[in-house]
Amino acid sequence: MSSTDVATVKKFLNNPDDLVPESLAGLEAAHSDLLRVDLENQIVVRRGAPTSGKVALVSGGGAGHEPLHGGFVGVGMLDAACPGAVFTSPVPDQMLAATKAVDGGAGVVHIVKNYTGDVLNFRLAAELAEDDGIQVESVLTNDDVAVEDSLYTAGRRGVGVTVLVEKIAGAKAAAGGTLAEVAGIARKVNAQGRSFGVALTSCATPTSGGPIFEIGSNEMEFGVGIHGEPGRRRERVKPAAEIVEQMTTAILGDLDAPSGSNVLAFVNGLGGTPLIELYLVYNDLTKQLERHGLTATRNLVGNYITSLEMAGVSITLLALDEELTMLWDAPVHTPALRWGT
Amino acid sequence: MSSTDVATVKKFLNNPDDLVPESLAGLEAAHSDLLRVDLENQIVVRRGAPTSGKVALVSGGGAGHEPLHGGFVGVGMLDAACPGAVFTSPVPDQMLAATKAVDGGAGVVHIVKNYTGDVLNFRLAAELAEDDGIQVESVLTNDDVAVEDSLYTAGRRGVGVTVLVEKIAGAKAAAGGTLAEVAGIARKVNAQGRSFGVALTSCATPTSGGPIFEIGSNEMEFGVGIHGEPGRRRERVKPAAEIVEQMTTAILGDLDAPSGSNVLAFVNGLGGTPLIELYLVYNDLTKQLERHGLTATRNLVGNYITSLEMAGVSITLLALDEELTMLWDAPVHTPALRWGT
Repeated sequence: MSSTDVATVKKFLNNPDDLVPESLAGLEAAHSDLLRVDLENQIVVRRGAPTSGKVALVSGGGAGHEPLHGGFVGVGMLDAACPGAVFTSPVPDQMLAATKAVDGGAGVVHIVKNYTGDVLNFRLAAELAEDDGIQVESVLTNDDVAVEDSLYTAGRRGVGVTVLVEKIAGAKAAAGGTLAEVAGIARKVNAQGRSFGVALTSCATPTSGGPIFEIGSNEMEFGVGIHGEPGRRRERVKPAAEIVEQMTTAILGDLDAPSGSNVLAFVNGLGGTPLIELYLVYNDLTKQLERHGLTATRNLVGNYITSLEMAGVSITLLALDEELTMLWDAPVHTPALRWGT
Repeated sequence: MSSTDVATVKKFLNNPDDLVPESLAGLEAAHSDLLRVDLENQIVVRRGAPTSGKVALVSGGGAGHEPLHGGFVGVGMLDAACPGAVFTSPVPDQMLAATKAVDGGAGVVHIVKNYTGDVLNFRLAAELAEDDGIQVESVLTNDDVAVEDSLYTAGRRGVGVTVLVEKIAGAKAAAGGTLAEVAGIARKVNAQGRSFGVALTSCATPTSGGPIFEIGSNEMEFGVGIHGEPGRRRERVKPAAEIVEQMTTAILGDLDAPSGSNVLAFVNGLGGTPLIELYLVYNDLTKQLERHGLTATRNLVGNYITSLEMAGVSITLLALDEELTMLWDAPVHTPALRWGT
């Protein structure tokens, strides 16, 4: 192997099987004012939960997308998160434990990214919770316009919009929304949001022993999923302005956002792309939005839904109205997203 | 070249020479409520600056360490930042323009990381500013205990503590501190803080055409600098717990923090290390602190002073007292650090 070979897993790890619980223990140690970690059930629970009468929000999925979801547990966003192993769905028992831990009698919304394992397991957990007398509404996110079906998905994949759903529905719940209202606003965010991702490199999982897909030194995966799933095509790396134009075209071809609309523009790093490049992408994105008559009245730039150390970026656009804007602006205090407090 | 070769620069870029200005334009577009960018002088200036009677804080240095420094311009932290090209000191004219743009008559503190180019250029800028009747106090950060002299440095390198200096001195200035008081607290933070970094991979600059140093597939650079400067030794990658123990030992061997002390524990990603690993490192760090009788009463975990997409981590420990803790907790609103507002 050459001295720059990336085929070896080089990570800050102890036993690879312990990455998730050890990382969760660190999350709790750093943010014990906001959350606690139940290591036996492998769930992250908001400090002070349940809150009587408040609709609770639970999300989860495979680990490796941090800060999603555990980094969004706190005030004004998620009440609990249940991470599985890296890129592996959590099991129904975790989801059930999380649901029971946060139900305040007003019901629980499950925010489920559209991957087959997550969908099946959350469905079973919801049935078990309802057997225990807890009302559950499940909200599916499926905002990735890149492909219809994918490696782990029937229909579209749930990606960047999940972060926006968690923030906005979390604000609705904090404001006293009913179960139907909180689920309704979550579905609205998903319906009005679209995403597209591009990867320059693969990531390696702690146990994969190397990159999870091969990619040439001058290639990019156009439409990549957050587990390295194939996108629309493999092509040569181009100038960022061209990549962003193509991503924006793909998104806006599927999003009802006529000229004159306000949008939330979310430039998300997949983990291994430096912030200096994310802001360059944001700059190119603003030019594309202008060309389409759109105004980014709100934005988010950073690593919020990642694929371990993958070099890549996703763009999510959310068509805003007054209510969504107000709920976005509402106070939030979580490890990864904080304002107004 | 093999299909996983990393020797090619794969980045979201247009013209490599335009990375810094295009990224700054994106920073301004995303955060126009907080700051403006003067592209001619290549400086980032707090919106509303200068504030009459308030001591102003200016920092700067080579780009490639984002969010440092431009991402810390805003309320309660920096008044201006002047980035150079990637890993290249800004020139005195930029520093002077930034100083003039934010001086509110109460003087300006220059926060200077200890690299020869930065030190010389900031010194000249301070002289030019004083010729213009602006009082300047320069504060040097040199917290990296890994090596004494380095590629670009006489004495110790300035690294992670710089973020803490900018936050805490920014709070002192916001609270009405005099020039001497703000500079004094900045020097105190530097004196009471120590850092150590480890790299698993190299980064590539936009114009380097490949990694800036070679590293074996099972090696780490123990004591790396934020420009890939060599550390104490090259060694095999070990379990994270061992790496963190060695880093902590190096830091505490040089820091006056007796058992029973409170510290701020800062686990910083160098750009390409995923958050799940940073929290694992934080977990290992808390065990080391406990072993030394220290309590992390404050913490920061994330990518705050980076080396582009380098995989690596640095640890900074700051011995806290009541005043430093209070200033750390004071409201801050910048693109990269926000609380209390």
